[in-house]
Amino acid sequence: MTQLTTCLSPQLLPLHQIQDKIVVVVDILRATSSMVTAFAYNVESVTPVPTLADCRLFKNEGFVTAGERGGQKVEGFDLGNSPFDFMNHELQGRHLAFTTTNGSQAIVLASEAKQVLIGSFLNLSATAGYLMAQKSPVLILCAGWKGNFNIEDTLYAGALAQKLETTFEISDDASLAAITLYNGVAGHMKEFLGKSSHAKRLAGFKNQKDLEFCLKRDQFGFNVVLQNTRLLKLDPST
Amino acid sequence: MTQLTTCLSPQLLPLHQIQDKIVVVVDILRATSSMVTAFAYNVESVTPVPTLADCRLFKNEGFVTAGERGGQKVEGFDLGNSPFDFMNHELQGRHLAFTTTNGSQAIVLASEAKQVLIGSFLNLSATAGYLMAQKSPVLILCAGWKGNFNIEDTLYAGALAQKLETTFEISDDASLAAITLYNGVAGHMKEFLGKSSHAKRLAGFKNQKDLEFCLKRDQFGFNVVLQNTRLLKLDPST
Repeated sequence: MTQLTTCLSPQLLPLHQIQDKIVVVVDILRATSSMVTAFAYNVESVTPVPTLADCRLFKNEGFVTAGERGGQKVEGFDLGNSPFDFMNHELQGRHLAFTTTNGSQAIVLASEAKQVLIGSFLNLSATAGYLMAQKSPVLILCAGWKGNFNIEDTLYAGALAQKLETTFEISDDASLAAITLYNGVAGHMKEFLGKSSHAKRLAGFKNQKDLEFCLKRDQFGFNVVLQNTRLLKLDPST
Repeated sequence: MTQLTTCLSPQLLPLHQIQDKIVVVVDILRATSSMVTAFAYNVESVTPVPTLADCRLFKNEGFVTAGERGGQKVEGFDLGNSPFDFMNHELQGRHLAFTTTNGSQAIVLASEAKQVLIGSFLNLSATAGYLMAQKSPVLILCAGWKGNFNIEDTLYAGALAQKLETTFEISDDASLAAITLYNGVAGHMKEFLGKSSHAKRLAGFKNQKDLEFCLKRDQFGFNVVLQNTRLLKLDPST
């Protein structure tokens, strides 16, 4: 059976071989949830960019700029990092440059993998279905918070791993812990996350709308994949 | 309220400030469980040593040498890393030099903390009681496996944090995840750990005796503390 493993923080990524794997990068609050939402509103591409300076260069090329630092919108950028910022039909066909504290950087770190997918609860089943069909080994990479472990990305890892338990061999401790954690709190994720450090940070400057939306499962039926330096909606026929 | 946080792997330790904290280092399978057991059999001191070569130098000084690499006893060493190796009254008053893949190295990494304690299920309540009395901030450092996350150390972190929930402020995601995980499996830890990668490694060359013993709670009522480069039994009057 093909293996599925979980990496709980980008700081632990050097302990994993990723060249032959599909890596699913997840930053539930909020980068990857927002990226998937942007594709639901038919953006043409999203380029993850590590630095603010690079992101500003893309603006000069006609890109829409989006992102945050420390959870706050960046001055001079077109959009922030809330999924609601991307629910805008004017984004159809546009190219986005997106920089965030954790998610964008994790995507760049993962880029030497065989393939990179974007993970979110919003398209959880679509991602599980795609991975089942590929039969490649999988690594779920939690973006975490400034290199450290976080709960919401770990819960997503548990949710995805649990869906793939019968198709993949899952025996690493991180996946087992994530599945157990998810199974324990799946029915009350929002309340559970209310105690977490990131939800507290988020509560400091945003209402609960973002958190509620980012935890919704299976709103969208497509996948998002990295091609060279850009994220694109995956053509279901491929 | 004073803070308690958890670090799930030595690789993540650089993300934490430890100078003003009591750090509890835990390597349940088997280094810290064995160290605590050695003090129950009245060894005088245990010196954690990072390398095999250093450990051999201590042998020339009259130390008893103990440890493992890759879970196996080291050729030429007096003892391995099983707690049963230390249940020997001939060890009374002896000085041990101890080197292991994960635990000894985590202790050395933690040595710039305000104080370093050794954690194990075997003296869980004694450690909780000591920490409650100190009122210093606490970091639980999981030794993990070759830098990566492991379940048994995380379960210990959850068990200790849960005992301290009403005394300390606990709001980091790692502690919350550890407490939730521990509460979910506390009644069947051995069966749950049977699925984990480390228990599988252990099963490859040892029977289940070590695992069962290392999960026993509150067999001993003392604490073990690092003083300069040596671990000593903590005098309860201090």
